[in-house]
Amino acid sequence: MRKNFGSKPALYPMPVLIVAAYDENGKANAMTAAWGGIVDTKLLGICLSASHKTTQNIFATGAYTVSMATVSTMVEADYLGITSGNKVADKLEKAGLHTSKSEFVNAPIIEEFPMTLECKLISYDESTGYMIGEIVNISADESILSENGSIDPAKLNPITFDPINHAYLPLGPAVGTAYQAGKKIQ
Amino acid sequence: MRKNFGSKPALYPMPVLIVAAYDENGKANAMTAAWGGIVDTKLLGICLSASHKTTQNIFATGAYTVSMATVSTMVEADYLGITSGNKVADKLEKAGLHTSKSEFVNAPIIEEFPMTLECKLISYDESTGYMIGEIVNISADESILSENGSIDPAKLNPITFDPINHAYLPLGPAVGTAYQAGKKIQ
Repeated sequence: MRKNFGSKPALYPMPVLIVAAYDENGKANAMTAAWGGIVDTKLLGICLSASHKTTQNIFATGAYTVSMATVSTMVEADYLGITSGNKVADKLEKAGLHTSKSEFVNAPIIEEFPMTLECKLISYDESTGYMIGEIVNISADESILSENGSIDPAKLNPITFDPINHAYLPLGPAVGTAYQAGKKIQ
Repeated sequence: MRKNFGSKPALYPMPVLIVAAYDENGKANAMTAAWGGIVDTKLLGICLSASHKTTQNIFATGAYTVSMATVSTMVEADYLGITSGNKVADKLEKAGLHTSKSEFVNAPIIEEFPMTLECKLISYDESTGYMIGEIVNISADESILSENGSIDPAKLNPITFDPINHAYLPLGPAVGTAYQAGKKIQ
Protein backbone atom coordinates (compact mmCIF):
# COMPACT_ATOMS: atom_id res chain seq x y z
CA MET A 1 0.00 0.00 0.00
CA ARG A 2 1.14 3.52 -0.81
CA LYS A 3 0.44 6.66 1.16
CA ASN A 4 -0.12 9.95 -0.70
CA PHE A 5 1.56 13.11 0.56
CA GLY A 6 0.33 15.65 -1.99
CA SER A 7 2.64 18.10 -3.74
CA LYS A 8 5.97 18.66 -1.97
CA PRO A 9 9.41 19.83 -3.16
CA ALA A 10 11.14 16.68 -1.96
CA LEU A 11 13.40 13.98 -3.28
CA TYR A 12 16.46 12.06 -2.10
CA PRO A 13 19.21 13.10 -2.22
CA MET A 14 19.07 16.90 -2.18
CA PRO A 15 22.24 18.98 -2.03
CA VAL A 16 23.38 21.59 0.48
CA LEU A 17 24.87 24.26 -1.78
CA ILE A 18 26.73 27.36 -0.62
CA VAL A 19 26.24 30.16 -3.15
CA ALA A 20 28.76 33.01 -2.90
CA ALA A 21 29.11 36.28 -4.81
CA TYR A 22 30.66 39.72 -4.50
CA ASP A 23 28.59 42.88 -4.28
CA GLU A 24 29.34 45.85 -6.53
CA ASN A 25 32.11 46.92 -4.11
CA GLY A 26 33.80 43.51 -4.07
CA LYS A 27 32.49 42.48 -0.66
CA ALA A 28 31.71 38.77 -0.46
CA ASN A 29 28.49 37.28 0.86
CA ALA A 30 27.04 33.76 0.74
CA MET A 31 23.85 31.80 1.32
CA THR A 32 22.74 28.19 1.44
CA ALA A 33 20.31 26.55 -1.02
CA ALA A 34 18.94 23.05 -1.47
CA TRP A 35 16.83 23.46 -4.59
CA GLY A 36 19.19 22.85 -7.46
CA GLY A 37 21.07 20.40 -9.61
CA ILE A 38 22.84 19.78 -12.89
CA VAL A 39 20.77 20.97 -15.88
CA ASP A 40 23.03 20.08 -18.80
CA THR A 41 26.68 19.32 -19.67
CA LYS A 42 27.88 22.74 -18.53
CA LEU A 43 24.81 24.12 -16.76
CA LEU A 44 23.81 24.28 -13.11
CA GLY A 45 20.35 25.37 -11.91
CA ILE A 46 19.53 26.80 -8.47
CA CYS A 47 16.38 28.40 -7.09
CA LEU A 48 17.31 31.75 -5.48
CA SER A 49 14.64 34.30 -4.60
CA ALA A 50 15.42 37.77 -5.93
CA SER A 51 15.16 39.26 -2.43
CA HIS A 52 18.33 37.53 -1.19
CA LYS A 53 21.43 39.70 -0.85
CA THR A 54 23.40 37.02 -2.72
CA THR A 55 20.94 37.04 -5.64
CA GLN A 56 21.25 40.82 -5.91
CA ASN A 57 25.05 40.46 -5.82
CA ILE A 58 24.92 37.93 -8.67
CA PHE A 59 22.80 40.33 -10.70
CA ALA A 60 25.48 42.99 -10.08
CA THR A 61 28.52 40.87 -11.03
CA GLY A 62 27.11 38.15 -13.31
CA ALA A 63 29.14 35.53 -11.46
CA TYR A 64 29.03 33.24 -8.43
CA THR A 65 30.50 30.13 -6.92
CA VAL A 66 28.64 27.09 -5.62
CA SER A 67 30.33 24.91 -3.01
CA MET A 68 29.35 21.69 -1.31
CA ALA A 69 28.63 21.87 2.42
CA THR A 70 30.52 19.15 4.28
CA VAL A 71 30.22 17.36 7.61
CA SER A 72 33.02 19.49 9.07
CA THR A 73 31.46 22.76 7.80
CA MET A 74 27.83 21.87 8.60
CA VAL A 75 27.42 24.49 11.33
CA GLU A 76 28.79 27.26 9.11
CA ALA A 77 26.68 26.08 6.14
CA ASP A 78 23.50 26.03 8.21
CA TYR A 79 24.31 29.47 9.63
CA LEU A 80 24.65 30.88 6.10
CA GLY A 81 21.18 29.49 5.37
CA ILE A 82 19.33 30.79 8.44
CA THR A 83 20.88 34.29 8.48
CA SER A 84 20.07 37.00 5.92
CA GLY A 85 22.83 39.04 4.33
CA ASN A 86 20.31 41.88 4.25
CA LYS A 87 20.37 41.95 8.08
CA VAL A 88 23.88 40.81 9.02
CA ALA A 89 26.54 42.86 7.25
CA ASP A 90 29.30 40.27 7.29
CA LYS A 91 27.96 36.74 7.57
CA LEU A 92 31.18 35.19 6.31
CA GLU A 93 33.33 36.94 8.94
CA LYS A 94 30.88 36.01 11.69
CA ALA A 95 31.04 32.38 10.55
CA GLY A 96 34.85 32.48 10.58
CA LEU A 97 35.07 31.82 6.83
CA HIS A 98 37.72 33.16 4.46
CA THR A 99 37.52 33.94 0.76
CA SER A 100 39.82 34.37 -2.19
CA LYS A 101 38.86 35.40 -5.71
CA SER A 102 38.18 32.71 -8.30
CA GLU A 103 40.76 32.54 -11.10
CA PHE A 104 37.93 32.12 -13.60
CA VAL A 105 34.99 34.32 -12.59
CA ASN A 106 34.46 37.50 -10.57
CA ALA A 107 33.26 35.66 -7.47
CA PRO A 108 34.66 34.53 -4.13
CA ILE A 109 35.82 31.02 -3.32
CA ILE A 110 35.24 30.22 0.35
CA GLU A 111 38.41 28.45 1.35
CA GLU A 112 36.83 26.25 4.03
CA PHE A 113 34.55 24.53 1.45
CA PRO A 114 36.86 22.18 -0.46
CA MET A 115 34.87 21.66 -3.70
CA THR A 116 33.55 24.61 -5.69
CA LEU A 117 31.77 25.16 -9.00
CA GLU A 118 32.72 28.53 -10.50
CA CYS A 119 29.80 29.87 -12.53
CA LYS A 120 28.74 32.63 -14.89
CA LEU A 121 25.12 33.77 -14.79
CA ILE A 122 23.27 32.67 -17.92
CA SER A 123 19.58 33.27 -17.15
CA TYR A 124 17.14 34.01 -14.32
CA ASP A 125 13.44 33.19 -14.31
CA GLU A 126 11.65 35.93 -12.36
CA SER A 127 8.52 33.83 -11.78
CA THR A 128 10.28 30.85 -10.18
CA GLY A 129 13.58 32.38 -9.07
CA TYR A 130 15.39 29.69 -11.03
CA MET A 131 18.91 30.72 -11.98
CA ILE A 132 20.91 28.93 -14.65
CA GLY A 133 24.67 29.30 -14.64
CA GLU A 134 27.48 28.00 -16.80
CA ILE A 135 29.98 25.90 -14.85
CA VAL A 136 33.25 27.47 -16.02
CA ASN A 137 35.50 25.49 -13.70
CA ILE A 138 35.40 23.08 -10.78
CA SER A 139 38.16 23.48 -8.23
CA ALA A 140 38.95 21.19 -5.34
CA ASP A 141 41.35 21.42 -2.44
CA GLU A 142 44.21 18.95 -2.64
CA SER A 143 43.14 17.55 0.72
CA ILE A 144 40.08 15.89 -0.87
CA LEU A 145 41.85 14.30 -3.84
CA SER A 146 42.46 10.58 -4.19
CA GLU A 147 45.87 9.15 -5.05
CA ASN A 148 45.03 9.38 -8.75
CA GLY A 149 44.27 13.10 -8.37
CA SER A 150 40.49 13.02 -8.76
CA ILE A 151 37.89 14.20 -6.24
CA ASP A 152 37.22 11.60 -3.55
CA PRO A 153 33.71 11.96 -2.09
CA ALA A 154 34.80 10.14 1.07
CA LYS A 155 37.39 12.87 1.69
CA LEU A 156 35.01 15.66 0.63
CA ASN A 157 32.41 14.17 3.01
CA PRO A 158 29.49 16.30 1.78
CA ILE A 159 26.20 16.64 3.60
CA THR A 160 22.83 16.29 1.90
CA PHE A 161 19.48 17.83 2.86
CA ASP A 162 16.63 15.65 4.07
CA PRO A 163 13.57 17.69 2.98
CA ILE A 164 11.07 15.60 4.98
CA ASN A 165 12.79 15.48 8.36
CA HIS A 166 14.97 18.62 8.03
CA ALA A 167 18.15 16.74 8.80
CA TYR A 168 21.60 16.69 7.25
CA LEU A 169 22.63 13.25 5.96
CA PRO A 170 26.17 12.31 4.87
CA LEU A 171 27.09 9.99 2.01
CA GLY A 172 28.26 6.44 2.64
CA PRO A 173 30.87 4.28 0.88
CA ALA A 174 30.12 3.02 -2.65
CA VAL A 175 27.63 0.16 -2.97
CA GLY A 176 28.00 -0.38 -6.73
CA THR A 177 29.43 0.76 -10.04
CA ALA A 178 27.36 2.94 -12.37
CA TYR A 179 26.93 1.70 -15.97
CA GLN A 180 28.06 -1.77 -14.78
CA ALA A 181 25.67 -2.99 -12.08
CA GLY A 182 22.81 -3.39 -14.58
CA LYS A 183 24.78 -5.66 -16.93
CA LYS A 184 23.60 -8.57 -14.78
CA ILE A 185 20.19 -8.10 -16.36
CA GLN A 186 21.38 -7.24 -19.87
CA MET B 1 46.19 24.55 -2.78
CA ARG B 2 43.32 23.95 -5.17
CA LYS B 3 43.37 21.89 -8.33
CA ASN B 4 41.29 23.02 -11.33
CA PHE B 5 39.25 20.46 -13.25
CA GLY B 6 37.64 22.66 -15.91
CA SER B 7 33.94 22.51 -16.73
CA LYS B 8 32.17 19.34 -15.61
CA PRO B 9 28.55 18.49 -14.79
CA ALA B 10 29.37 17.36 -11.26
CA LEU B 11 28.34 18.04 -7.70
CA TYR B 12 27.63 16.02 -4.58
CA PRO B 13 25.10 14.62 -4.04
CA MET B 14 23.46 13.80 -7.37
CA PRO B 15 20.27 11.74 -7.53
CA VAL B 16 19.52 8.47 -9.33
CA LEU B 17 16.05 9.13 -10.73
CA ILE B 18 13.85 6.60 -12.50
CA VAL B 19 11.59 8.36 -15.00
CA ALA B 20 8.58 6.34 -16.16
CA ALA B 21 5.84 7.07 -18.68
CA TYR B 22 3.25 5.33 -20.85
CA ASP B 23 3.40 5.40 -24.62
CA GLU B 24 0.33 6.32 -26.66
CA ASN B 25 -0.94 2.72 -26.30
CA GLY B 26 -0.56 2.64 -22.51
CA LYS B 27 2.63 0.56 -22.50
CA ALA B 28 5.02 1.58 -19.72
CA ASN B 29 8.73 2.28 -20.17
CA ALA B 30 11.34 3.84 -17.89
CA MET B 31 14.85 5.27 -17.89
CA THR B 32 17.39 6.48 -15.36
CA ALA B 33 18.65 10.08 -15.08
CA ALA B 34 21.05 11.89 -12.73
CA TRP B 35 20.78 15.47 -14.00
CA GLY B 36 17.89 16.95 -12.12
CA GLY B 37 16.57 18.47 -8.93
CA ILE B 38 13.90 20.58 -7.30
CA VAL B 39 13.29 23.83 -9.22
CA ASP B 40 10.58 25.48 -7.12
CA THR B 41 7.86 24.70 -4.54
CA LYS B 42 5.98 22.41 -6.93
CA LEU B 43 8.47 22.03 -9.78
CA LEU B 44 10.99 19.32 -10.65
CA GLY B 45 13.58 19.67 -13.42
CA ILE B 46 15.28 16.79 -15.26
CA CYS B 47 17.52 16.72 -18.32
CA LEU B 48 16.11 14.16 -20.80
CA SER B 49 17.29 14.07 -24.42
CA ALA B 50 14.42 14.08 -26.90
CA SER B 51 15.71 10.87 -28.51
CA HIS B 52 14.87 8.71 -25.49
CA LYS B 53 11.80 6.50 -25.76
CA THR B 54 10.67 7.78 -22.35
CA THR B 55 10.94 11.42 -23.47
CA GLN B 56 8.82 10.66 -26.53
CA ASN B 57 6.30 8.91 -24.28
CA ILE B 58 6.10 11.97 -22.02
CA PHE B 59 5.47 14.16 -25.06
CA ALA B 60 2.61 11.79 -25.99
CA THR B 61 0.92 11.66 -22.56
CA GLY B 62 2.03 14.87 -20.83
CA ALA B 63 2.73 12.93 -17.64
CA TYR B 64 5.44 10.90 -15.92
CA THR B 65 6.62 9.61 -12.58
CA VAL B 66 10.04 10.03 -11.00
CA SER B 67 11.17 7.50 -8.43
CA MET B 68 14.25 7.21 -6.26
CA ALA B 69 16.60 4.31 -6.98
CA THR B 70 17.46 2.45 -3.79
CA VAL B 71 20.22 0.14 -2.61
CA SER B 72 17.95 -2.88 -3.08
CA THR B 73 16.91 -1.80 -6.60
CA MET B 74 20.36 -0.61 -7.74
CA VAL B 75 20.83 -3.34 -10.37
CA GLU B 76 17.40 -2.69 -11.90
CA ALA B 77 17.95 1.10 -11.80
CA ASP B 78 21.33 0.81 -13.51
CA TYR B 79 19.86 -1.54 -16.12
CA LEU B 80 17.15 1.00 -16.95
CA GLY B 81 19.93 3.55 -17.51
CA ILE B 82 22.23 1.50 -19.74
CA THR B 83 19.51 -0.02 -21.93
CA SER B 84 17.51 1.93 -24.53
CA GLY B 85 13.76 1.56 -24.79
CA ASN B 86 14.21 2.16 -28.51
CA LYS B 87 16.10 -1.15 -28.74
CA VAL B 88 14.57 -3.35 -26.03
CA ALA B 89 10.80 -3.54 -26.31
CA ASP B 90 10.04 -4.28 -22.68
CA LYS B 91 12.80 -3.09 -20.36
CA LEU B 92 10.54 -3.17 -17.31
CA GLU B 93 9.53 -6.80 -17.86
CA LYS B 94 13.16 -7.82 -18.47
CA ALA B 95 14.14 -6.11 -15.21
CA GLY B 96 11.34 -7.94 -13.36
CA LEU B 97 9.59 -4.68 -12.46
CA HIS B 98 5.83 -4.17 -12.11
CA THR B 99 3.70 -1.09 -12.68
CA SER B 100 0.34 0.28 -11.70
CA LYS B 101 -1.25 3.49 -12.88
CA SER B 102 -0.84 6.64 -10.77
CA GLU B 103 -4.06 7.87 -9.16
CA PHE B 104 -3.11 11.43 -10.10
CA VAL B 105 -1.49 11.44 -13.54
CA ASN B 106 -1.56 9.25 -16.66
CA ALA B 107 1.76 7.57 -15.87
CA PRO B 108 3.00 4.30 -14.37
CA ILE B 109 4.22 3.86 -10.81
CA ILE B 110 6.87 1.16 -10.64
CA GLU B 111 5.93 -0.78 -7.56
CA GLU B 112 9.47 -1.84 -6.64
CA PHE B 113 10.60 1.78 -6.18
CA PRO B 114 9.04 2.87 -2.87
CA MET B 115 9.06 6.70 -3.27
CA THR B 116 7.62 8.36 -6.35
CA LEU B 117 6.94 11.89 -7.54
CA GLU B 118 3.92 12.00 -9.87
CA CYS B 119 4.35 14.80 -12.40
CA LYS B 120 2.63 16.70 -15.18
CA LEU B 121 4.76 18.03 -18.01
CA ILE B 122 5.01 21.82 -17.85
CA SER B 123 7.78 22.74 -20.29
CA TYR B 124 10.64 21.31 -22.33
CA ASP B 125 13.68 23.21 -23.53
CA GLU B 126 14.71 21.76 -26.91
CA SER B 127 18.24 23.19 -26.75
CA THR B 128 19.18 21.66 -23.38
CA GLY B 129 16.65 18.82 -23.06
CA TYR B 130 15.60 20.27 -19.71
CA MET B 131 12.11 19.20 -18.73
CA ILE B 132 10.12 20.95 -16.02
CA GLY B 133 7.24 19.11 -14.41
CA GLU B 134 4.71 19.94 -11.74
CA ILE B 135 4.88 17.58 -8.77
CA VAL B 136 1.20 16.72 -8.37
CA ASN B 137 1.69 14.12 -5.65
CA ILE B 138 4.38 12.20 -3.81
CA SER B 139 3.51 8.65 -2.88
CA ALA B 140 5.49 6.30 -0.67
CA ASP B 141 5.14 2.66 0.19
CA GLU B 142 4.12 2.06 3.80
CA SER B 143 7.27 -0.03 4.26
CA ILE B 144 9.44 3.12 4.19
CA LEU B 145 7.39 5.21 6.63
CA SER B 146 8.50 6.04 10.14
CA GLU B 147 6.26 5.51 13.17
CA ASN B 148 4.86 9.03 12.74
CA GLY B 149 3.86 8.22 9.15
CA SER B 150 6.43 10.33 7.30
CA ILE B 151 9.04 9.12 4.82
CA ASP B 152 12.12 7.71 6.56
CA PRO B 153 15.23 8.01 4.36
CA ALA B 154 16.93 5.20 6.30
CA LYS B 155 14.10 2.86 5.25
CA LEU B 156 13.97 4.26 1.71
CA ASN B 157 17.77 3.75 1.51
CA PRO B 158 18.24 5.69 -1.75
CA ILE B 159 21.39 5.60 -3.81
CA THR B 160 23.12 8.69 -5.15
CA PHE B 161 25.30 9.09 -8.24
CA ASP B 162 29.01 9.87 -7.91
CA PRO B 163 29.71 11.77 -11.15
CA ILE B 164 33.49 11.69 -10.76
CA ASN B 165 34.04 8.01 -9.99
CA HIS B 166 30.85 6.58 -11.53
CA ALA B 167 29.82 4.87 -8.33
CA TYR B 168 26.56 4.61 -6.43
CA LEU B 169 26.76 5.99 -2.88
CA PRO B 170 24.08 5.48 -0.20
CA LEU B 171 23.04 8.03 2.42
CA GLY B 172 24.17 7.72 6.03
CA PRO B 173 22.38 8.50 9.31
CA ALA B 174 21.72 12.14 10.22
CA VAL B 175 24.67 14.21 11.41
CA GLY B 176 22.73 17.38 12.27
CA THR B 177 19.47 19.31 12.22
CA ALA B 178 18.76 21.78 9.43
CA TYR B 179 17.79 25.33 10.48
CA GLN B 180 19.19 24.55 13.95
CA ALA B 181 22.87 23.63 13.63
CA GLY B 182 23.85 27.19 12.65
CA LYS B 183 22.29 28.79 15.74
CA LYS B 184 25.59 28.16 17.51
CA ILE B 185 27.02 30.99 15.41
CA GLN B 186 23.97 33.26 15.49
